[in-house]
Amino acid sequence: MAKTNPGRFFEDYRVGQVIEHAVPRTVSGGERALYHALYPARHAIYSSDEFAKLCGLAESPMDDLIAFHTVFGKSVPDVSLNAVANLGYAEGRFHRPTWRGDTLRARSEVIGLKQNSSGKTGVVYVRTEGRNQRGELVLDYVRWVMVRKNDLAAPAPDTVVPELAAAVDPATLLVPEGLTFADYDTVLSGEPHRLRDYAVGEIIDHVDGVTIEEAEHMMATRLWQNTSKTHFDVTPRADGKRLIYGGHVMSMARALSFNGLANAQMIVAINGGSHANPCFAGDTVRAWSEVLDVAETGAPGVGALRLRLVATKDGSVGALKGADGKYLPGVLLDLDYWALMPQ
Amino acid sequence: MAKTNPGRFFEDYRVGQVIEHAVPRTVSGGERALYHALYPARHAIYSSDEFAKLCGLAESPMDDLIAFHTVFGKSVPDVSLNAVANLGYAEGRFHRPTWRGDTLRARSEVIGLKQNSSGKTGVVYVRTEGRNQRGELVLDYVRWVMVRKNDLAAPAPDTVVPELAAAVDPATLLVPEGLTFADYDTVLSGEPHRLRDYAVGEIIDHVDGVTIEEAEHMMATRLWQNTSKTHFDVTPRADGKRLIYGGHVMSMARALSFNGLANAQMIVAINGGSHANPCFAGDTVRAWSEVLDVAETGAPGVGALRLRLVATKDGSVGALKGADGKYLPGVLLDLDYWALMPQ
Amino acid sequence: MAKTNPGRFFEDYRVGQVIEHAVPRTVSGGERALYHALYPARHAIYSSDEFAKLCGLAESPMDDLIAFHTVFGKSVPDVSLNAVANLGYAEGRFHRPTWRGDTLRARSEVIGLKQNSSGKTGVVYVRTEGRNQRGELVLDYVRWVMVRKNDLAAPAPDTVVPELAAAVDPATLLVPEGLTFADYDTVLSGEPHRLRDYAVGEIIDHVDGVTIEEAEHMMATRLWQNTSKTHFDVTPRADGKRLIYGGHVMSMARALSFNGLANAQMIVAINGGSHANPCFAGDTVRAWSEVLDVAETGAPGVGALRLRLVATKDGSVGALKGADGKYLPGVLLDLDYWALMPQ
Repeated sequence: MAKTNPGRFFEDYRVGQVIEHAVPRTVSGGERALYHALYPARHAIYSSDEFAKLCGLAESPMDDLIAFHTVFGKSVPDVSLNAVANLGYAEGRFHRPTWRGDTLRARSEVIGLKQNSSGKTGVVYVRTEGRNQRGELVLDYVRWVMVRKNDLAAPAPDTVVPELAAAVDPATLLVPEGLTFADYDTVLSGEPHRLRDYAVGEIIDHVDGVTIEEAEHMMATRLWQNTSKTHFDVTPRADGKRLIYGGHVMSMARALSFNGLANAQMIVAINGGSHANPCFAGDTVRAWSEVLDVAETGAPGVGALRLRLVATKDGSVGALKGADGKYLPGVLLDLDYWALMPQ
Repeated sequence: MAKTNPGRFFEDYRVGQVIEHAVPRTVSGGERALYHALYPARHAIYSSDEFAKLCGLAESPMDDLIAFHTVFGKSVPDVSLNAVANLGYAEGRFHRPTWRGDTLRARSEVIGLKQNSSGKTGVVYVRTEGRNQRGELVLDYVRWVMVRKNDLAAPAPDTVVPELAAAVDPATLLVPEGLTFADYDTVLSGEPHRLRDYAVGEIIDHVDGVTIEEAEHMMATRLWQNTSKTHFDVTPRADGKRLIYGGHVMSMARALSFNGLANAQMIVAINGGSHANPCFAGDTVRAWSEVLDVAETGAPGVGALRLRLVATKDGSVGALKGADGKYLPGVLLDLDYWALMPQ
Repeated sequence: MAKTNPGRFFEDYRVGQVIEHAVPRTVSGGERALYHALYPARHAIYSSDEFAKLCGLAESPMDDLIAFHTVFGKSVPDVSLNAVANLGYAEGRFHRPTWRGDTLRARSEVIGLKQNSSGKTGVVYVRTEGRNQRGELVLDYVRWVMVRKNDLAAPAPDTVVPELAAAVDPATLLVPEGLTFADYDTVLSGEPHRLRDYAVGEIIDHVDGVTIEEAEHMMATRLWQNTSKTHFDVTPRADGKRLIYGGHVMSMARALSFNGLANAQMIVAINGGSHANPCFAGDTVRAWSEVLDVAETGAPGVGALRLRLVATKDGSVGALKGADGKYLPGVLLDLDYWALMPQ
């Protein structure tokens, strides 16, 4: 009997199937420090226990994207080992922060299947959730991937395409327990701009760029125990390149967005996201944001800003898609999220 | 008086000599996180406090190889600074886990000496042990290295070659206090295969490959405070290459072996080991294992598997040595160890 | 209104101006482990909780340069984002160690201004201080940088050049509370040399070299939240090179100096420093030291050694400046500091 995991193929999925992902993971101060070494992350709540306390939290939580990447990484051996493409995200919600010493585990439910007309691939929709050691929900999100068929003769399943919200309703955003921006300090946070200073439609060029190295993206991707071969091994591709984990670009862009969005402190929802073009070592990643919406929350002084975060490798700002409706070749990531910001 | 350490030469060693190695080292959550960033490590006991508790431990211990590398690194300035080659290991035993916050120190006793016929080098055998801050033995192992003579006129010592066991007797394997696999969860651990599923002689191709970068192996080697110049400095070699610390390949191969040996949880003995060929940045490391033996232990549900772990840079599987008895050029590491596995 | 930080230009500074730097930072075991992965650091007080206890401390503190880099990094967006050159340091004093879990914040006071004759740049002198979460002073130092003018028509300020001490008076050196070298163990520390073994004028070649990689210096520089674009982005320079943060060379040289100065345990003052020439990935950094002075302190067994630490990229030893008074092209760093050493 073969001992190694070949991954699932399209014909191995059934709507309603629930997959418990292996290898729970304890994250702590080491993961936090590595996150700061790998990304130019400076949002003050994630940098300082003291600033977090000023905002009503017990200590500085782990960056939201540490939780996201960890849960995502757990799902890779079961969901995307044979994926051709990671197509999109929707309905992502952060239910509570992850604290030093928490242990995250993950499970996914298959919520949709659609075989492609070629008969060689199909789209699998999963809702993945991460829980901590107390069984509390930490985050959940929908992801859909294109997966190869292994047995081309396997019959096509009934097509089920889930209805997904275009964006998380701001009335349902979850504010971490105890969070307050009533005593928010914009000197310590790094910028004076509050919710009222941002206008829908406004474009922010985050200016700074980071040229990516192989060692960095591999360290990041391993830290999240993401086992996708394409990130680590030069031998499969004819050009000898390693494809960079899309989440690495996501964290890089989010960290770069500090410059202009220093007070967009916590990510509370991911409305959608596309890895528009591949990223390779040597690319210089830059980012720009567009303000999509503003909202209130019930928490003291806490507003919410809906942002489109775009990572590029050509330094362009504001341009996203061509006349053909396709992403421009310099665009790496198009992420739509809600962040909490002082009013 | 010269202040820097020139290292010992062959004529500086005496059988029975005991060397206390300098710079004790506290290891904690940061070292643990870095281990997961540097290697694709996923064995669940080392990944999750919760999984470790399910196995009867107080928390997730440090990876066994963190303890090994730390103790090994301490010995380098005294044992192998002038080494020509690291020839082998034997009788390695892990006596207890290393926990977050433990401080490791190391000492070596010279147990054998044999001058080579050239008169320019000799083989030094040492038994190295690591202890924690409570003075408890953490691991010990025999290592032998070929060391240069500085004074070629120094007389050859009496030849003493220690008798070394071909393998650690499984009846003497040390199971960590409290360890139980009675409630072992193969869904969380990542694979269903238990001790009974492995047959002596079985070969497992671990499939995945990692292309090595300079920054990664240097960070790892520094983390273990290994000061061997050849890993860090491009100037000594005519080809401008940095030789990768053999232990980096060991950890990489062990981590890759998760795919097929996810339940070979804890290393309890190192029976032998050879760094068969040098590894350089740009090499793509893969691994395969051969099942050498199976054994019982007294602990609940805990069996032991003796494995040969082979790292390669050419992707070959199952081939180890040529007709001349020498390692094939694509083989990097040949490691023989005992691991604990659920029955 | 532009949201991103353009940095201050020369005409934006006033003598007496106090700038609170943003984004306080909690440092802990993760930063400590990364420091050991990025630099070959082996000074025993920073490596081992047990050794630190033997020296009267509660636990192993963070390396002094972790505190320095963190405070320095905080000041970059306000002081040196538009700097042409980082000209020098003086009057640096470490007031107390930084412990795991401490949160550092920083502020700078402008203490001098001098417009250059070109009218295009000027020198800004700041005294920067770092404090912990209890408001206690951790370190302070004077730094001066050459900064571009944005508005060339802005009038030149009155020239104020602060009088700076050539060196910190050893009678004012601050020994950490409780520190004692009465029971100092030179076997564990790695070298037998004590204060009395060093003679003023003595030159020590630290022998070892490290070839620098892009991924490493960027990880280090990000860890200190230093946002200077030139360290991360290949696009601004015609040669596509990234300039390495001078503090990376400082930490590398200090770590290399263990070999010959293993007992120069804690840095307590920075008398002066110059980043003599730029460092780029691929350079092999080596170091040598010159003993400049010796002194007593009131603490049991604790002496102080004043050292010139020179980092080079050409392996030269002892040569610093040419006949023209300028640093030789192979010199990267010339740092003058006081360290505590057992008598």
